[in-house]
Amino acid sequence: MPVDQLDEGNQLRGLPWMVALSQGLGVAMIVLIGIWLNSYMGGFAWDGTSKEFNLHPLCMICGLVFLYGEAIMTYRIFRQSKKLKVKIIHAGLLFLALFAAIVGLVAVFQFHNKYSIKNMYSLHSWCGMITVVLFCLQLAIGFLCFLLPGARANLRSFYLPLHQFWGSAILILSAVTCISGINEKLFFVYKTTYQKLAGGAVMGNMCGVVIVMFVMSVLFVVQRQEWKRPPDEDEDAVSIHFRTLTNQDSDSE
Amino acid sequence: MPVDQLDEGNQLRGLPWMVALSQGLGVAMIVLIGIWLNSYMGGFAWDGTSKEFNLHPLCMICGLVFLYGEAIMTYRIFRQSKKLKVKIIHAGLLFLALFAAIVGLVAVFQFHNKYSIKNMYSLHSWCGMITVVLFCLQLAIGFLCFLLPGARANLRSFYLPLHQFWGSAILILSAVTCISGINEKLFFVYKTTYQKLAGGAVMGNMCGVVIVMFVMSVLFVVQRQEWKRPPDEDEDAVSIHFRTLTNQDSDSE
Repeated sequence: MPVDQLDEGNQLRGLPWMVALSQGLGVAMIVLIGIWLNSYMGGFAWDGTSKEFNLHPLCMICGLVFLYGEAIMTYRIFRQSKKLKVKIIHAGLLFLALFAAIVGLVAVFQFHNKYSIKNMYSLHSWCGMITVVLFCLQLAIGFLCFLLPGARANLRSFYLPLHQFWGSAILILSAVTCISGINEKLFFVYKTTYQKLAGGAVMGNMCGVVIVMFVMSVLFVVQRQEWKRPPDEDEDAVSIHFRTLTNQDSDSE
Repeated sequence: MPVDQLDEGNQLRGLPWMVALSQGLGVAMIVLIGIWLNSYMGGFAWDGTSKEFNLHPLCMICGLVFLYGEAIMTYRIFRQSKKLKVKIIHAGLLFLALFAAIVGLVAVFQFHNKYSIKNMYSLHSWCGMITVVLFCLQLAIGFLCFLLPGARANLRSFYLPLHQFWGSAILILSAVTCISGINEKLFFVYKTTYQKLAGGAVMGNMCGVVIVMFVMSVLFVVQRQEWKRPPDEDEDAVSIHFRTLTNQDSDSE
């Protein structure tokens, strides 16, 4: 085996283990949050009550933490696959995350409206709204810039590091919002008895800790220089393919 | 001017602006949190009451957000200074951060004990304790590995990317903990009237948003590849200097 392939093999040695760890944490996170909401917080329904509210944390965590985290790891997990294929998986996961987030937001607004609770007053809600707005902006700009044909190559290369930074930043904002939300929920439900750390309180805290661990594992995978996808030899081919399809040549620079 | 110096000049163009932005946000954060705690939450005292509690958010934010953020930016701000000098500033700021965090922790434990409130039950406190423990570990290992002489060069180069990752991760954890803490405090103080968004509630929310903005600006500065400090030509000289001083040659590999 050539020396440079051996070097790359050594550099990539930790990647499958960290990906496996993040997947394990992701599954544990969804299972824990499901058990917590179903067994300790009253379960789920679509009836405007606190059972509908419970769909809010479930959907937001499935969408803007789990699916979002998976989406930003696709370029590390499918390092050898064709870039266009990986882009489509990345975008597909993000659109699923958007769908989950919309359901989660409708659930909390319907619950608030039924009980005449004001929307958007807490710091949790402010952080959440900032996260969702940035997520939508990032999805729209990313879609226009990287998936639709027509964007100039120099615009793409200018925007790529910003897209990568905001990709991680939005995941961090999601974690900030989730932790403040779970903390708030536990004070709403248990009030002064939160101190006694009943089963549901410990489970809620555990959910928060596992969310933080999942987010950290994803950030570790995406920030590691050696694990980044190598520059793509078929990138030009894809651009040419798009250009041929659309008769655009504005990205010929 | 040689072409490579021109290139470097172009790449570094945004750095002073982003540093200035982060400094502005940092000062705004400390001023806002000071006004919020002093004018809306009852002010400060060292008497075990809620006035002592108010020193908890002030000290934790000054320490584990502001000073900590400044510390991890030192390698970007002093790109041209001697590495040993920058290391000492970095470590000095982190020891100041540790001191502020200790005062902040003593304040909250004394307040809890005076009113027989249990310590360490909320998700906020769990996240906070994880943050403080990781911060102390990172400080101790970083000190032993990078500032004290004797660490092998291959140990240093193995640990450096981990130290950098955990450096950012601890700042993220600090932000997570601050936002859940401010959110919790506002529900404690205003209860159901938080919805009315009185002056202190809006100020508290604003503090949270500015904390997030400061943390994001720091993370932006430290993650940008082109802004990283170039490999240090006098690094070996420093090691040799240490080696001569201490008669250690265990790091000769």
